[in-house]
Amino acid sequence: VSALQENARNGKGGVVSESRVRVRYAETDQMGVVYHANHFIWFEIGRVDLMRQLGFTYRDMERDHGCFIPVVDARCRYKAPAHYDDEIIVRTHLRNVRESMIHFGYELVRASDDQVLAEGETMHMILDAKMKASSLPPNIVKVFREAAGK
Amino acid sequence: VSALQENARNGKGGVVSESRVRVRYAETDQMGVVYHANHFIWFEIGRVDLMRQLGFTYRDMERDHGCFIPVVDARCRYKAPAHYDDEIIVRTHLRNVRESMIHFGYELVRASDDQVLAEGETMHMILDAKMKASSLPPNIVKVFREAAGK
Amino acid sequence: VSALQENARNGKGGVVSESRVRVRYAETDQMGVVYHANHFIWFEIGRVDLMRQLGFTYRDMERDHGCFIPVVDARCRYKAPAHYDDEIIVRTHLRNVRESMIHFGYELVRASDDQVLAEGETMHMILDAKMKASSLPPNIVKVFREAAGK
Amino acid sequence: VSALQENARNGKGGVVSESRVRVRYAETDQMGVVYHANHFIWFEIGRVDLMRQLGFTYRDMERDHGCFIPVVDARCRYKAPAHYDDEIIVRTHLRNVRESMIHFGYELVRASDDQVLAEGETMHMILDAKMKASSLPPNIVKVFREAAGK
Repeated sequence: VSALQENARNGKGGVVSESRVRVRYAETDQMGVVYHANHFIWFEIGRVDLMRQLGFTYRDMERDHGCFIPVVDARCRYKAPAHYDDEIIVRTHLRNVRESMIHFGYELVRASDDQVLAEGETMHMILDAKMKASSLPPNIVKVFREAAGK
Repeated sequence: VSALQENARNGKGGVVSESRVRVRYAETDQMGVVYHANHFIWFEIGRVDLMRQLGFTYRDMERDHGCFIPVVDARCRYKAPAHYDDEIIVRTHLRNVRESMIHFGYELVRASDDQVLAEGETMHMILDAKMKASSLPPNIVKVFREAAGK
Repeated sequence: VSALQENARNGKGGVVSESRVRVRYAETDQMGVVYHANHFIWFEIGRVDLMRQLGFTYRDMERDHGCFIPVVDARCRYKAPAHYDDEIIVRTHLRNVRESMIHFGYELVRASDDQVLAEGETMHMILDAKMKASSLPPNIVKVFREAAGK
Repeated sequence: VSALQENARNGKGGVVSESRVRVRYAETDQMGVVYHANHFIWFEIGRVDLMRQLGFTYRDMERDHGCFIPVVDARCRYKAPAHYDDEIIVRTHLRNVRESMIHFGYELVRASDDQVLAEGETMHMILDAKMKASSLPPNIVKVFREAAGK
């Protein structure tokens, strides 16, 4: 049982979204497992889905509100390899939210047996349409903070 | 001996640029060879280098002149697999140039033994900064046509 | 209305599978649209799903039967750009099947308005576990031929 | 001036390799900068080049010695965006070497002005050809430790 699931059972922690990706052939390498850079692409799928679940479409945040959230720090700890055609669950939660910084946490688990494959986190700053440091709109900060369980 | 080399020896054909890429681990798949979509990325490296050799930096064409050349047709025929850490030579030439369309041809050969790994071609239309159909500037058409040997 | 849909309505043609992919941020480029090499990765998702629909898991074909189907020819014609977060339907069908060669055809359409984004095809040879030219097992040839509507 | 350069000037630290990559169009995203997962692919290019400089070809380590070094932890801190067609220098060094674990550190700097774009690190375990935990051959440990300057 993963830490995120444990928290959920105990009523701790905030919102955790779940996304599903099926491993593509292109994502494998000659070691016969998923190449490690792809996990960061799956994390991105997870955080976009978490935002969608909270009522915000990242596409619209960029396009309509000129709000960009580039990654400033990314980390992944690999526990077990992911294989071609595996179905992977990406569990995403908000670890911390400030007006100028968002911190996401992730777990990747194999759907067939809930084996944890990797854990990770990304830190994001906020940029406006001119790519200058900016802040999240107050309504988003409010929703994200509640979702973070803090 | 590849067709492009044969032409070069016989004084036929136009300018052929040569780029070198070393196969990255990320580009391999679990079959132990380079995943086939990567060849199109190498073609792009080839055509940008050919343009550079002809005096045009594609980055500047986009940034300074609002001239974009998206792919409208792409094809690759695979002759032999590329392996991790192989050095690949990308030979690129212009097959045809019109004001509103550019047609590139490519050969991928393994540097160690000049084995042809793949042949391909891409067709590009011209867009302006508003992503509307446009034409190549006359000075570029002139240089590209000469390079095409036509 | 796409050609594949037209055929389906008229009772022509064979089995057409439908897969859905949502455009990832990683798949876009600085032109603001999906980079053209990614379409070939989506085609692969399509043909694996078509095989699954016909009762064959490509993962098992490789792992249990030592049957590999590398691409020997791939082509894509781009009709309209795909954008970030678009939901894309990959329609895949078998164009031709021989013991030693499989020919798939593809259509990519945007789910929101059924706009055709691209059409393509891939040709595959059959290799055994030693990466030598081989043939499809007769039971697979039979099912694939029926699915090709021929 | 980067930390690695500072150390080199002061005679501290171990071997630092330098690799050069030119940013590919496929590596950019719709924010107009390099998508963050690609930095981990550049790190890989760096560590393979460092090994080559120390006399070991990773390809041969895998193929001839059945020695695989999968990533178990990867981190990148992003300082400034990388842009299309930028030439990037990947500076790689060994941070720590044990028989069962290798720790690499990286700096990505823009060649035109030596601006630090990112810093990162990866931790690797050693697997044998059966993908079981293993150890580095003693001769490699020795050379890597010397290169780590420890």
